[in-house]
Amino acid sequence: MTAGRGPTIVAPAVPAGLDTPSLVIDVGIVEANARRLGEQLRARGVALRPHAKTHKSVSLAGIQLAAGASGITVGTLGEAEVMADGGIDDIFIAYPIWAVGPKAARLAALHDRTGLTLSVGFDSVAAAERLAIAAGSSSGAPPLRVILEIDPGNGRTGVAASRAGAIAAAARNLGLDVLGVFTHGGHAYRGAGAVASAAADEVHALTVATEQLRSAGIEPRVISAGSTPTALGAAAEPVNEIRAGTYLLGDRIQVALGGSSPSAVAIAIAATVVSTAVDGHVIIDAGAKTLTKDMPEYLVGYGSLPAYPEAVIERVSDYHGVVRIPAGTQRPALGEVVVVIPNHCCPVVDLFDEFVATRGGVEIGRWPVDARGRSG
Amino acid sequence: MTAGRGPTIVAPAVPAGLDTPSLVIDVGIVEANARRLGEQLRARGVALRPHAKTHKSVSLAGIQLAAGASGITVGTLGEAEVMADGGIDDIFIAYPIWAVGPKAARLAALHDRTGLTLSVGFDSVAAAERLAIAAGSSSGAPPLRVILEIDPGNGRTGVAASRAGAIAAAARNLGLDVLGVFTHGGHAYRGAGAVASAAADEVHALTVATEQLRSAGIEPRVISAGSTPTALGAAAEPVNEIRAGTYLLGDRIQVALGGSSPSAVAIAIAATVVSTAVDGHVIIDAGAKTLTKDMPEYLVGYGSLPAYPEAVIERVSDYHGVVRIPAGTQRPALGEVVVVIPNHCCPVVDLFDEFVATRGGVEIGRWPVDARGRSG
Repeated sequence: MTAGRGPTIVAPAVPAGLDTPSLVIDVGIVEANARRLGEQLRARGVALRPHAKTHKSVSLAGIQLAAGASGITVGTLGEAEVMADGGIDDIFIAYPIWAVGPKAARLAALHDRTGLTLSVGFDSVAAAERLAIAAGSSSGAPPLRVILEIDPGNGRTGVAASRAGAIAAAARNLGLDVLGVFTHGGHAYRGAGAVASAAADEVHALTVATEQLRSAGIEPRVISAGSTPTALGAAAEPVNEIRAGTYLLGDRIQVALGGSSPSAVAIAIAATVVSTAVDGHVIIDAGAKTLTKDMPEYLVGYGSLPAYPEAVIERVSDYHGVVRIPAGTQRPALGEVVVVIPNHCCPVVDLFDEFVATRGGVEIGRWPVDARGRSG
Repeated sequence: MTAGRGPTIVAPAVPAGLDTPSLVIDVGIVEANARRLGEQLRARGVALRPHAKTHKSVSLAGIQLAAGASGITVGTLGEAEVMADGGIDDIFIAYPIWAVGPKAARLAALHDRTGLTLSVGFDSVAAAERLAIAAGSSSGAPPLRVILEIDPGNGRTGVAASRAGAIAAAARNLGLDVLGVFTHGGHAYRGAGAVASAAADEVHALTVATEQLRSAGIEPRVISAGSTPTALGAAAEPVNEIRAGTYLLGDRIQVALGGSSPSAVAIAIAATVVSTAVDGHVIIDAGAKTLTKDMPEYLVGYGSLPAYPEAVIERVSDYHGVVRIPAGTQRPALGEVVVVIPNHCCPVVDLFDEFVATRGGVEIGRWPVDARGRSG
């Protein structure tokens, strides 16, 4: 994929008079996104368990559950604690928690919560041993539900599918309740050309892993693939669950990869032009501590300004975004509030205490980013 | 500068048993860094007004003031509010605040605080007009202290030095108290070869700007240059103040640029190896929501592991750091806690609620990142 500005995104309407930088979401678009993917997956007989690391918000998780999500996914114990405190009762921690010391105590406390259905990822027998000890699975406590991570070719975490049977059996023999297997098709993020094959890789890896578990005498109840770009492509036999996250808010990366349509982006940053003193660019008050430095090689700039499609956010320092205005193109005025679409919504949300929740440009409330900073 | 791993940094000692990821600082090293630069600048007759955006901590600002700092610098109104609430009584907001709406009200409230000496940056007559209105400078309130930003060739914010007289005079005529001029030599961050010339650029721009102000009948009281790499190089006539920030904690970028020595880095991330399932690398629980994606082209990796100098953090996703272990080199074990030196301390600190404060590897307390997330 050639690096480019990407399709022009239809920015959510932003209320006037906000302090800047502000994190704005359009709840109507959020609800539509939650419904759309839920329906598409239901039509395929596949459950949706959205990844809440995208939004870290109990309110947004509630919208997903109201739209039929089967539960939520999180990436850390801290997110699980916050979501459980918020009343979410079915949580999968899709991460190979190494349960010793403080993490063992925290995992045990979550496992013991009344009314919470908790499951946890693992990708080694050693990690399973710590999980079993932490959850008291060998001492008469109800067994901890665990799901084995399989590497579909992403090359990050997860065991080779061909080893799934032996490792799952070892976990079962430790007293754990092995629910099934999961993949993350993160290699889809290499570019739009990688999405379809990443989805196929997930289905293939999960097919092999499922057979492996059956050979070991374990019938998988959860066969879970996950990423927004691969969400529909991976929703095929034997997969019975999808763990997409970014689909809810959208961002420039998702639009470039086909995971969101340009009119389905629900998130925007309101920023002010604070300086036009240096020729050729304007400075906005959204820098690296707002937009992050997340910029895949197939995107130009650290975010886009839909109202100024030729403008490029070419540098960011902590509180400054340097927006290059190509000669002959329109530029925003000093003092103007501009709407910025971030490249990657997940780390951007983690930099704010609250969402400005809107409907059609009208503020309806401030919603906390409840699990902000809960990265462990 | 060739991209490289950079010098091996002496990692601060990290207490055993921490939850991960944790943000650790060695207070002894912090204090030594605060004293060293203060003394070096005092020997040159130059004041140090450290930039608190690096640490966002009232406690760390207190260490700087105890070591003789003349006041502090911040980048946002939010940081100023938090530091003022913490009892800091002399604050310069080195940012071209556009004082309308909520920001005008917040600026006015700060300006009216008893016992607070506040000054604010600007780089346009239009911004000065808003500042004057917000601070009531035309209606009998004490005049707001402002400092004109000059671009020393960084190409971000700031007026050309040759225009400083006219703009400063316009601000004075609006009823503002024009204290002087400031630069940020951010072009030093292009690489070690750019540091000396960036410092010289700051001195030159401030020399011209000082003459400009005098020609306009304004005797500058503050002639302020700022960045850690240029701190000593720019401490030359007529400069009378340096606004370094990162010198206090250090990081990989500063060591690469000569702004910190490899034994003066006070900050580290404690992370756990959570997966070794995929050959050739290990996964740590410090990803983009801990280390950020800040990686200048002259550094390899998103952080370094001093105990494993050949290891490269070559990818980060939200909660995963992918640490490549070159063949034939030592790798940390599954479950091991490793110490990571971040590339850029400022945005990393902004991702944590607290510092684990230590002395020589022993925890002495948890210090809040008071101004976390106050990016506006």
